[in-house]
Formats: sequence, C-alpha cells, structure tokens
Amino acid sequence: MPNSNDLIICGLGAMGQRIARLALIRGYRIRAVVDRDPAKVGKPLHELLDIATHEYLITVTSDLGAALQGEKATVMHATGSFLSDIAPQLRACLAQGHDVISIAEEMAYPAAADVELAAELNELASANGARLLGTGVNPGFAMDVLLMALTVPCGHVSHVHARRCNDLSDFGATVLDSQGVGLTASAFEAAIASGKVVGHVGFRQSIGLMAAHFGWPIDRIEERKSAIISQSTRSTPHVSVAPGQVAGCLHEAVAFCGEQEVIRLEHPQQIHPGLEGIETSDVARITGDQTIEMRISPEVSGGSGTAACAVNAIAYLRQAKPGLVHINELPLTSPRSFFSTTS
Amino acid sequence: MPNSNDLIICGLGAMGQRIARLALIRGYRIRAVVDRDPAKVGKPLHELLDIATHEYLITVTSDLGAALQGEKATVMHATGSFLSDIAPQLRACLAQGHDVISIAEEMAYPAAADVELAAELNELASANGARLLGTGVNPGFAMDVLLMALTVPCGHVSHVHARRCNDLSDFGATVLDSQGVGLTASAFEAAIASGKVVGHVGFRQSIGLMAAHFGWPIDRIEERKSAIISQSTRSTPHVSVAPGQVAGCLHEAVAFCGEQEVIRLEHPQQIHPGLEGIETSDVARITGDQTIEMRISPEVSGGSGTAACAVNAIAYLRQAKPGLVHINELPLTSPRSFFSTTS
Repeated sequence: MPNSNDLIICGLGAMGQRIARLALIRGYRIRAVVDRDPAKVGKPLHELLDIATHEYLITVTSDLGAALQGEKATVMHATGSFLSDIAPQLRACLAQGHDVISIAEEMAYPAAADVELAAELNELASANGARLLGTGVNPGFAMDVLLMALTVPCGHVSHVHARRCNDLSDFGATVLDSQGVGLTASAFEAAIASGKVVGHVGFRQSIGLMAAHFGWPIDRIEERKSAIISQSTRSTPHVSVAPGQVAGCLHEAVAFCGEQEVIRLEHPQQIHPGLEGIETSDVARITGDQTIEMRISPEVSGGSGTAACAVNAIAYLRQAKPGLVHINELPLTSPRSFFSTTS
Repeated sequence: MPNSNDLIICGLGAMGQRIARLALIRGYRIRAVVDRDPAKVGKPLHELLDIATHEYLITVTSDLGAALQGEKATVMHATGSFLSDIAPQLRACLAQGHDVISIAEEMAYPAAADVELAAELNELASANGARLLGTGVNPGFAMDVLLMALTVPCGHVSHVHARRCNDLSDFGATVLDSQGVGLTASAFEAAIASGKVVGHVGFRQSIGLMAAHFGWPIDRIEERKSAIISQSTRSTPHVSVAPGQVAGCLHEAVAFCGEQEVIRLEHPQQIHPGLEGIETSDVARITGDQTIEMRISPEVSGGSGTAACAVNAIAYLRQAKPGLVHINELPLTSPRSFFSTTS
C-alpha cells in the first residue's frame, strides 16, 4: 500500500494536466511526471500547468522506469484509451508495487476488451500488493455507476437505459474527426466502414461493469453508429458544418440476456446541439418493480469530471484488496475535504 | 458471518411484510419471524403475507430470544424508528452474532441520535463477529446516498441540496397525524410545539452520513417545520382537508460548517400534491467545481424502496468487516439477479 501522499503522473496531456492540477489542490505530492512529448520533457511541471511554483521542483521525464523508482505511490495514468497500447506501462507500474488509477476507457472493465490480459494484470497487481483501477465519467460514471446508484431502492431490475447528450464544441480536431463532424452523409458512412469514425469508446466497458454488478449474463451486444445531420450552420474554431452535413455521431449499444434487451445506452455527440434546441443532458430510466426516471441537465462534465473521478479514487483505492479493482466494488468515491485527504 | 441464506424477521408490520415478501422472492429462507402483535403471534407467515404456502412452515412468535437461537443469520429489523426504543432488540441480535439490517430511521447514522449508544453497538457487533447496518430510502438513499453518488465526478463540493416532494395519500392515520394533515393552521402550530407533528425523522441521520462521507465538520443544524396550507379540497380514506386547512408539512434542515451553509434538505410531505399541480419528485443540486442538477419524477418510492434497500444490502453486508457499518461504506447495494443471490 502506498504509505505516503505521493503520486506519479504518467501522461501529461490535457487530461493528465487536469489531474495534476486537481491533485496538487487536494494536497497530494507529485513526485514524478512522465510524458514522451519532446516539447514537455525537461520542463518544470508548474510551468506546464501554468501555476505558481512549489516548494519542490520536478521536471517531466520520458523515462518511465526511472520515475517508478522509490517508495510505493499511486500512479495517475492518462496516456491512451486502449489496453493493448497501455499494457506495458501498467505492467511496469504494478511490478514496482505502485497502485495505478487509469482513465483509459478500456480500463473501466478490462475484461471487455481482453479477458486474458485482465487476468494477467489482476495477478501481477495481487502478487505485488498493488491495486489497479480504471475510472472516469464515461465509462465509469454517467452510463454505469450512476445507473447502479439508481437501482439501490429497486427490488428487481429488468432494464436500464441511459442517454447522454453532450456538446463537442470545445474539443480539438482529433475528437471531432473521431465523431465524423463536418463530413457529408456519404463520407460519414465510409468513415464508419473504414474505422475512422469510432464513436464512443466505452460502451462494452459500461455494459461489462453493469453485468458484473447486477449479476446479468450478457449474451449479445449490438452497436449502431449513425450520423447526426445538421439542419443549421454550426461552427467551432476547428470545423464548420453546413446544413445537410454531419454535426456529430449518435452511437448506441444494446445488450441482451438471451433474447431479452436488458441495457440500452445512447450517446449522441455533436457540436452546438443548442443551436437546434437540444439541451445537453444525462437521462436514465430504470425499469423494475418501480420505474425511476432521472434527468441531469446540463450533462455531467466529461473533462473536469474524469480528472475528479481519478483524484477522488486515490484514497478509496488504498483501502481495497490488492489486485484489479472495478469502480463498482468501491464505496462511492466522493471527494473528501482537504483536511481529511491530507491527514 | 452468516453461513447460510437464513433470515430472521424482527417486526412484521407493513414494512416487515414487504421485506419478507421480497426476501422470499429473492431466494432467501426465512427461519423465524418475531412480532409482539397478538393478532399475528402463532399465525403462519404465508397466511399473513397472503402468499402460497412454502415447503417449510413457520409461525410468528413473540419470543425474540427463542427466534435468535441457532446458526448465525441475518436479522431484518423493522420494529420502530428510534434508537432508544430498539436498542434492547439490537443488543440481543448482536450478542448472538447475527448480522442486523435495520430500517429504523435513527439507525442510518446512529451517532446522530446517541454517540455513546452507537459506540456500544459497534463494540458489541465487533466482539461477536456481527455487522449492524441501517438502511432505507429516506434516510439512506434519496437525501444522502443519491447526493453522494452525484459528487463522484466533482473535484470539490461546497454545497449539496435535496428536495423530496412525496404524496402521503396512501398512508394511514398514524403517518397523516405525524404530518398534521387535516389540522387548521393554528392547531398545526400547537401540534408542532407539543411534538405531536414530528415531520420527517431522518434529517440528522442524512446529514451525519454526508458529513462523515465528505469529511465535513458540521457545527450546527437548523430545522424548520411549516404547514402546507391547501388551496383546494383534498381527501383520502382517512382524512378530508378543506381549503385553508393543512395538507401536510414542509420540513427543512440546514447544516453549517462555521457560518457556511453546506447542506440543505427540504421535504414537503402532503396528500394529493397533484391537485395543485405539484409533481412528486426527488430533486438535487450539487455545487462545487461543477454544478450538477438532477431531477427524478415521480419520486423514488419510499415503501417498496425501503424494503428493497434492506433486502439488497444482505449480500453486501456479509462482505463487510464486523461492527457498525454505514451504508456509504459499502459498494452500491444494487439488487443482484436471483441466480447470483442464491448461489
């Protein structure tokens, strides 16, 4: 178990920077920062975060092995979405006995992407007395944990439904391209076929988490991606969309036990939904011995929210049994006041 | 730890009956039922529950000590609201090493009513390898756990607010009297002063749970009860309310850290709110680094919901460390499918 408030930041992109800023505010000590970007390596952390200097100076290194030396700490991992890309980093962290909190989408429920790798990481973590957790707003909260919370007063549940409508206007070209924003309808279909438009990464993880939590044996998952065609002109600094062009991607996933639909997740992502009268929101419906219909509007923030999910989990994860930990196995990872976190 | 699916029902009132019915559906075995009502003692459980007979026949006993004999089980406790009334029953259960799940409002956070008794029960449970948990919809979910869930994606939280508007039309005379339904405005004020109108029991427990969960040192709690004066004629089988009379009670509680308000809970309870265009609902607002506004309408069911909270918690409580357990210390106690519960 980490016997200090020390953190090691692995990945100082937009999300890693959010995590680092919040962790410092919350009284954690950042001991090392790893990033492979040559523009960042060697630079002081406080400069990159645009915050006042600290009593201790750390600079970004590209050497993960060196950063992992020393007492057991918690690694805040934010380098990528896919298990196959990040597994070597996770292995290195766990082998040193560090706890790891990753915001990689596939880490929310690793067995959904790779059962064998999930088992291997669990064993490696257990053997080294370390814990490995995936978290974030989606997957990790808006379309899974929040639904689980709503089922607490239900005697039985036969179906859960979530629809998360967000606004991509603040995102850069990479995200916009991944949702097909600005394409024509036919180019969108081609981009779906070629895999250039990926939609949301995380449905299978949310479904895996809920299936494990509810004890549901899922037999089949169906996914569908369709273009959100704009009726109006919508533009951001990165893209301009004319009427008839694609404003975003509606990605849906439906899970079945046998022939019975038990989970439906819908995630329309687009720029400026408000221009067509659409409020961003997280909407959920639980069907069972009672029906619970919930609406949060505007939607839970994905960016600051994911950083918060990661930082909030640090203290809770330290209380968990070594091994691979799923977010539904912990108590609710709410933020605790500073005096508590740092005591 | 209970090494079987055996339950002992302590209290077979309206709520105890709901708990018993759901527990049987969920595959638990009810081994004994205790109630002091002479109309129930000696009667077979299935007759009182109005369900088909089972492979085993049990009858209601008034002898708690006898019912508690045998292997460790889980006691489902539903005999009263107040710690001072139920403490002897809890002590008897824990002394035999049984886990106890109580829907007594004051058990949601026992230290709020009696710090010393909470400590004593914790020690007694620990010493006997038993666990003691309080749960229910309110307190236990709608105005505390649900708020905690909404804070998971928050980097910090400065204020939480919940407003639960429900409909008392289905309740009997005891509940209606406790909210002052049918009184004149002046009689309501007198009934508040005399303690006959009690409003909601559970605010201090919800606040205690959240204060512990968020690490907030609460310095002061202010409560206020006011009459909901009807504009229209409203009636139920038990009461008739003329315009100008009391349709229910708005009970509010506000908690402060120093001079800063950090928690605000509002609970208007009345008959037929729909007659004046008021939708029943659970509404929450989290204020912090992001604002999260949530609405559930109609509100989460209090009756079936509380029975579900209790039955759902059985399996989770068995995994917890012996002692007094608070609901926020467990993972989300969602219902698990039958095949899982009974395996």
